Amino acid sequence: MVDYETFELGDVQLSTGQTLRDAKLAYKTYGELNADKSNAIVYPTWYSGQHHDNEWLIGQGMALDPSKYFIIVPNMFGNGLSSSPSNTPPPHNSPRFPNVTFQDNVAQQHRLVTEHLGIEKLALVTGWSMGAGQTYQWAVSYPDMVERILPFCGSSKTSEHNIVFLEGVRHAIMTDAAWQEGLYDEQPVKGLRAVGRVYAGWGFSQAFYWQQLYKQDPLDYASLEDFLVGFWEGFFLNKDANNLLAMAWTWQNGDIGQTPGFDGNHEGALASIKAKAFVMPAEKDLYFPPEDEEYAVSHMTNAELRVIPGVWGHFAGGGANPVDIQFIDEALKELLAS
Amino acid sequence: MVDYETFELGDVQLSTGQTLRDAKLAYKTYGELNADKSNAIVYPTWYSGQHHDNEWLIGQGMALDPSKYFIIVPNMFGNGLSSSPSNTPPPHNSPRFPNVTFQDNVAQQHRLVTEHLGIEKLALVTGWSMGAGQTYQWAVSYPDMVERILPFCGSSKTSEHNIVFLEGVRHAIMTDAAWQEGLYDEQPVKGLRAVGRVYAGWGFSQAFYWQQLYKQDPLDYASLEDFLVGFWEGFFLNKDANNLLAMAWTWQNGDIGQTPGFDGNHEGALASIKAKAFVMPAEKDLYFPPEDEEYAVSHMTNAELRVIPGVWGHFAGGGANPVDIQFIDEALKELLAS
Repeated sequence: MVDYETFELGDVQLSTGQTLRDAKLAYKTYGELNADKSNAIVYPTWYSGQHHDNEWLIGQGMALDPSKYFIIVPNMFGNGLSSSPSNTPPPHNSPRFPNVTFQDNVAQQHRLVTEHLGIEKLALVTGWSMGAGQTYQWAVSYPDMVERILPFCGSSKTSEHNIVFLEGVRHAIMTDAAWQEGLYDEQPVKGLRAVGRVYAGWGFSQAFYWQQLYKQDPLDYASLEDFLVGFWEGFFLNKDANNLLAMAWTWQNGDIGQTPGFDGNHEGALASIKAKAFVMPAEKDLYFPPEDEEYAVSHMTNAELRVIPGVWGHFAGGGANPVDIQFIDEALKELLAS
Repeated sequence: MVDYETFELGDVQLSTGQTLRDAKLAYKTYGELNADKSNAIVYPTWYSGQHHDNEWLIGQGMALDPSKYFIIVPNMFGNGLSSSPSNTPPPHNSPRFPNVTFQDNVAQQHRLVTEHLGIEKLALVTGWSMGAGQTYQWAVSYPDMVERILPFCGSSKTSEHNIVFLEGVRHAIMTDAAWQEGLYDEQPVKGLRAVGRVYAGWGFSQAFYWQQLYKQDPLDYASLEDFLVGFWEGFFLNKDANNLLAMAWTWQNGDIGQTPGFDGNHEGALASIKAKAFVMPAEKDLYFPPEDEEYAVSHMTNAELRVIPGVWGHFAGGGANPVDIQFIDEALKELLAS
């Protein structure tokens, strides 16, 4: 019993020159496609997130209302549901899983949306973090298909600082001898716990910890150590190490300028976006700082910067803080109404 | 042939209830003590730094001019020169080295300055990072002895976010099986390299990497990877893992409120400082953000906040960037002249 569907992609030629054989795209839809097929929204997943982790932004009375919109949540390659190191048969499993870009993810999502679901226009693409990266990619790869985008807490090109932060994440896993260069039979749990502690300082802002918001509703942890174990180690302990490394590769290599036709010209790719855009970094996001998105907006033709205020940092877009959820939801409503 | 002296401390009772037996305090002095003993400056070291790493701020024509001042650089316990896991004989070596606080460090530095060097007044205490923590501690432990302080890129109490950042550092080391719970014969080099990559994102700001300043004078690395290996892995590979863990304990437990008499009252300890203070966080320091020091200054009676501008982040205080060196040096001159 699974709560999602799987689109069989066959053998997929990747932008990296590798082949993803017998590839699967796991997805879930919410609501019904209307008669003129004008109410479709794509809402991709994020680093290690799965479709159900996106559901906090979908609901009756919200912008992403299934009684009005047909919302498609495609699972990113590497997230354990779509083709991933953990679910691909030998020999392409585990550390031999090929490198997949945002371009590859979005090309296959496009096949799902057009070939399989018969949709030619998207009212909106939106997503958090790596989901924002896929959102930008949609607007660049298919400029005439995407009417609106709302990338939040993400970027159109992974910054060097973000690449460096992810080096810490990757090496926390790879330092564990139990990782065995990816050929483990059991998860490298020391490494996964270490990733939790490395990530903890990045996910929320300095001020979030200063104010000890992890002790308050809705998180309600008893102490800092309780939060580090219960939230952060717990977050990564139920993930697959090779999946995390595969998605880190996708993230580190994120760049809409690598879309065919742009030849590395990132600013040209930004300028090519036709969708109306609300670009929403979080005020104190430590790896997607607002100034980076300010730069992106300055190269777009129909984009507005809307900073999510507050101290939750990157997790302002994680769906746990009611104030941030409301702020994002209201922006989505305004964008969809325009 | 060593370029420093060692003060024999004997058996030291630590604030944690443990004993540091046959303890050594390594230090170096620059310049001459004047006749009325009024020109002494204490300038403690930082996380893994040794006295020679402080010398960039000392020199002819600078504020810390050895022709005017008698500058004492005491090496922090755990830094490999003063008593440390790496140089203490069994059974108190390696992972059995006792926990040492800033209070303990400063109490023994005070013995060096008073008992051994015969000094009763300090014109200034200054330091970077954990050196700033020791600077605050001097002003709280010996309020009538310290005339001026200039802590830069540090804090009087280690913030929870900073504690979390250090958890990532600690666990990068401890995840390496070669660490062997501290009982290694050879350094856990995978863990030390991983620490370099974890630390890299914290040491410099997002904007520093965005602008690729690691490629420019004075750093002059050829690429991001060259910087990660050459600077960051190199930085930690010649350190001892247990020393790094011992100093991390000192850092994580930094709090002037734990000074005897204050019973945990951090704000009371700040208010007790009599020294004139210039408090100098760096604008984009990711683990000692300016707002934390703004809070500290608001509880001090004779303190001024002076933010070091620019994008070098924590390493604005590391002595590599000429602009930052000049900014700190000018503030030191102004403070010493007042």
